[in-house]
Amino acid sequence: MIFNEIMGGITAPIGFLASGISAGVKKKNGPDIALIFSESPCAAAGVFTKNIVTGHSLDLCRANVANGCAQCIFINSGNANACIGQSGYEDARTIANQCAGILGITPGDVLTGSTGVIGHPLPMDRISAGITNAAAALSAEGGSDACRAIMTTDTYPKETAVEFDLGGFRTVLGGIAKGSGMIHPDMATMIGIITTDAFISSELLKKALIDSVGKSFNKISVDGDTSVCDMVLILANGMSGGPEITKGSKEYDVFKAALDHVSVHLAKAVAADGEGATKLIEINIRNARTPIDAARAAKAVANSPLVKTAFFGEDANWGRILTAAGSSGAVFDPNATTISIGPLVLYQNGTAIPFDEDEAACILKNKNIEVVIDFGDGAFSDTVWTCDLSHGYIDINANYRT
Amino acid sequence: MIFNEIMGGITAPIGFLASGISAGVKKKNGPDIALIFSESPCAAAGVFTKNIVTGHSLDLCRANVANGCAQCIFINSGNANACIGQSGYEDARTIANQCAGILGITPGDVLTGSTGVIGHPLPMDRISAGITNAAAALSAEGGSDACRAIMTTDTYPKETAVEFDLGGFRTVLGGIAKGSGMIHPDMATMIGIITTDAFISSELLKKALIDSVGKSFNKISVDGDTSVCDMVLILANGMSGGPEITKGSKEYDVFKAALDHVSVHLAKAVAADGEGATKLIEINIRNARTPIDAARAAKAVANSPLVKTAFFGEDANWGRILTAAGSSGAVFDPNATTISIGPLVLYQNGTAIPFDEDEAACILKNKNIEVVIDFGDGAFSDTVWTCDLSHGYIDINANYRT
Repeated sequence: MIFNEIMGGITAPIGFLASGISAGVKKKNGPDIALIFSESPCAAAGVFTKNIVTGHSLDLCRANVANGCAQCIFINSGNANACIGQSGYEDARTIANQCAGILGITPGDVLTGSTGVIGHPLPMDRISAGITNAAAALSAEGGSDACRAIMTTDTYPKETAVEFDLGGFRTVLGGIAKGSGMIHPDMATMIGIITTDAFISSELLKKALIDSVGKSFNKISVDGDTSVCDMVLILANGMSGGPEITKGSKEYDVFKAALDHVSVHLAKAVAADGEGATKLIEINIRNARTPIDAARAAKAVANSPLVKTAFFGEDANWGRILTAAGSSGAVFDPNATTISIGPLVLYQNGTAIPFDEDEAACILKNKNIEVVIDFGDGAFSDTVWTCDLSHGYIDINANYRT
Repeated sequence: MIFNEIMGGITAPIGFLASGISAGVKKKNGPDIALIFSESPCAAAGVFTKNIVTGHSLDLCRANVANGCAQCIFINSGNANACIGQSGYEDARTIANQCAGILGITPGDVLTGSTGVIGHPLPMDRISAGITNAAAALSAEGGSDACRAIMTTDTYPKETAVEFDLGGFRTVLGGIAKGSGMIHPDMATMIGIITTDAFISSELLKKALIDSVGKSFNKISVDGDTSVCDMVLILANGMSGGPEITKGSKEYDVFKAALDHVSVHLAKAVAADGEGATKLIEINIRNARTPIDAARAAKAVANSPLVKTAFFGEDANWGRILTAAGSSGAVFDPNATTISIGPLVLYQNGTAIPFDEDEAACILKNKNIEVVIDFGDGAFSDTVWTCDLSHGYIDINANYRT
C-alpha cells in the first residue's frame, strides 16, 4: 500500500497537542521536555525493553498503560531516571501527578519516559518548572518541538505522518522517534511515539503495535545492545469521526499498513542516524529454510562489527558477511548461497565471483546500501537495517558519561 | 598449581622441531609458512570453529586428526584457503602429500591450517617451494620462528611453555597462538598449537583439550564474530620417558593444570592483542544462579561495543556494564547486584554509588583491568577476557581486504 506522507508528525492527527521546551535537564542547553496531550481520552498501548534492568519512568509507564487508556505522554531527555533506587519511581509518580493536575486528567492516564545518562537523580525542581512551561506551550503545531525535545545524540529529528481513508473518513497517523542506535544502555535510548485519530480498541491497537514493532523498531541494530528505557507508545483518540476499526476488517488492514509505514520510516531513520553512521545498510535474507534461520542470519550480519567496519571502509567484503551468517546459528548451505551488494554478485555456489573493484567502489559510495544473502534453499525472508561502524562511534562513546 | 614458565614454546618439549619461513604468500614480506614436526608419532586432538562455513585446509585437518594420530602440522598465513570451491580442498591435500613425502610420513599424519584473506586460491607454486625450505629449516630451536610465521595482524608473537614433574620425569608442554581477535571471519583467524612430550592417549588428550579450550580460547572475545579457520591443535609424543597419563590419576590433574596454564596464557595474550586494543579487560561474574547465567552475562558484557568503547575512553561507565548484563538473557536481580572495577565499587543494591572520579581515572589508565559483577544470588562464576574498542580497530578493519 502506498501512503501520502504529510507534515505535522504526532500533531497531524486531529485532537493532539504537543510541546517541547528547555528545562535545563540536559548539560548542554536545548529542549529536554516533551509533552503530548490528546483532547479526548485515548486507547493506548506500549512495547517495552526486554532488558532485566528497567528505568523508573518506564516502570511507571508500563503500569499506567496496562489498562489500555491514556491521554498524556511526558518524556524528558538528558537523564534516564534509572538505577537510582526507590526515589526514582517516586519522581516518576510526582511527574505524572503534576501533569495530571495541570491537564485535568487522572495521574494513571499519564505515560512517563526518560532518556539520557543513568544513575543520577532527576533535577525535580527544574522538571517541575518545565512541566508548567510545557503545558502552557501545548499546541496543535507542536509535534516537531516535541520531536526535538526527546533527542539525545541524534543528529536530526525523526518524524513523519500519513493520511488515509477509513470508511470515508480522512484518518491520520503520525509518529516521532529518538535514538541514535536502537539500543544504548547508557543513553537509555530508543523511544518512539505514535498518535492517530483512528477509532480502535486498546486490545486491537496493542496487537497492531506489537506486530508492527516486530518488523520495524525490532529490526534495526546499531550496536546490538538493548537499553533500559526503550519503549514505543501509541495513542488513538478516535477523533477522525470514522467507524471503529474491527479485527479482520478491511479497515484494519489499511490502518495496519499505515502503522507499518510510519514505524518502518522512523526505524530506518534511527538506524541511519546510528552513532557515527555514514551509511544505512539493509540486510536482506532470502529463501531461508525457516523464519528463525532468516532472522538469525540477518541479525548476525547486521550486528557484526567486522561487516559494519568494512562498509565504513567501502570495502566489498563478502567474506565477513558469509562468515557472520555462518556463525549465527542459522542453518543453511554455503554452497547454495549467493551474496550480492546492490546489483553486484560477489559469491555464488561456495565460490568467490570475480568482480570489478571500480564498480564495487561506486556502489559502496552510496549512503543507502542493500545487501542480499540468498540461501537458495527455502521460502522465508527477513530484513534488518543497520549502519556502518566508524571512528565517529568511538568518539561519541569513548567519553559519553563524563 | 603454580608452573615454572620456560623458553622454547612448541619446541621446548623433547622431540619437536619447527621452522617458520617466508614463501611470499603474504602481500607484505614476512614469514608465512610454519612447519612443526615430531620425531616420533603423536597422539593428536583438535578443536575447530563452529561456523557453518569452514576453510578447506581446516576441513582436511579435521579429517586427518579424526583417528587421533599425527606427526606434522603445516600452517600458512596470508591466505585462508577458504571459499574457493573444490580446488581449495585439493590444494590442502597437495600440501599434506608434499609435507609427508619430504618428512617420510603418511599424508594422513599431516594437519593443515591456513589463515588470512578468504576467497583467493593459494599460490601453490610458492607454497610448494616454501614447504621444501621449511622442511630444510626444521630445528629444535625453531618454535619462535613458527610462532611468527602464523601471525596476521598480530602485533606480537604469542608463545609460552611450562615444565613439570610427572612420576619423576621432567615433562614439558608448550604452545603458540595467533589471532588479533578471537574471531575474525575475513582474517580467518584464531589458531593455537600446543605440543608436549607427555605420554597420553588421544582420547584422554582430546578430553583435556576440549575442557581446557572451554575455559581459555572460548572465553576470549574481541568482536564477537567467529572465523571459518579457528582451530586449536595438540600433539603429544610421549618422549619425556614418563609413564602414561591415565584418566582420574594425579598425573592427569597435573598435566591438565599445565595445559590450562598454557591455554589461558595464550588466550589472554590473544585478547590483549585484539585489533586496536589498548587494554586487556577481565570480566568476572560471581554468585550467579546457574553456570549458564554466569556465562551469558560475562559474554554479553565482554562483547558490548558500548562497554568496550567506554574502557577505551577510560570512562567508569558501570551503567553500560549493568545494562549489557541485563539484556544478555541471564536471570539475576539488579537490586542484589554489585559492580566494581578494580577496587572501586560503582553500583550496589540497585543504586549508583558515588565514587571519586580521580581514583577511577587512575584505575582505568592501567593496561589490565578487572571488572567484577556480583549477582549476590547464587554460587556460580565465569570469567571472560576482552579488550577495548578503539579507533585502531576501525582503521585495521575498514580496509583490510583491499
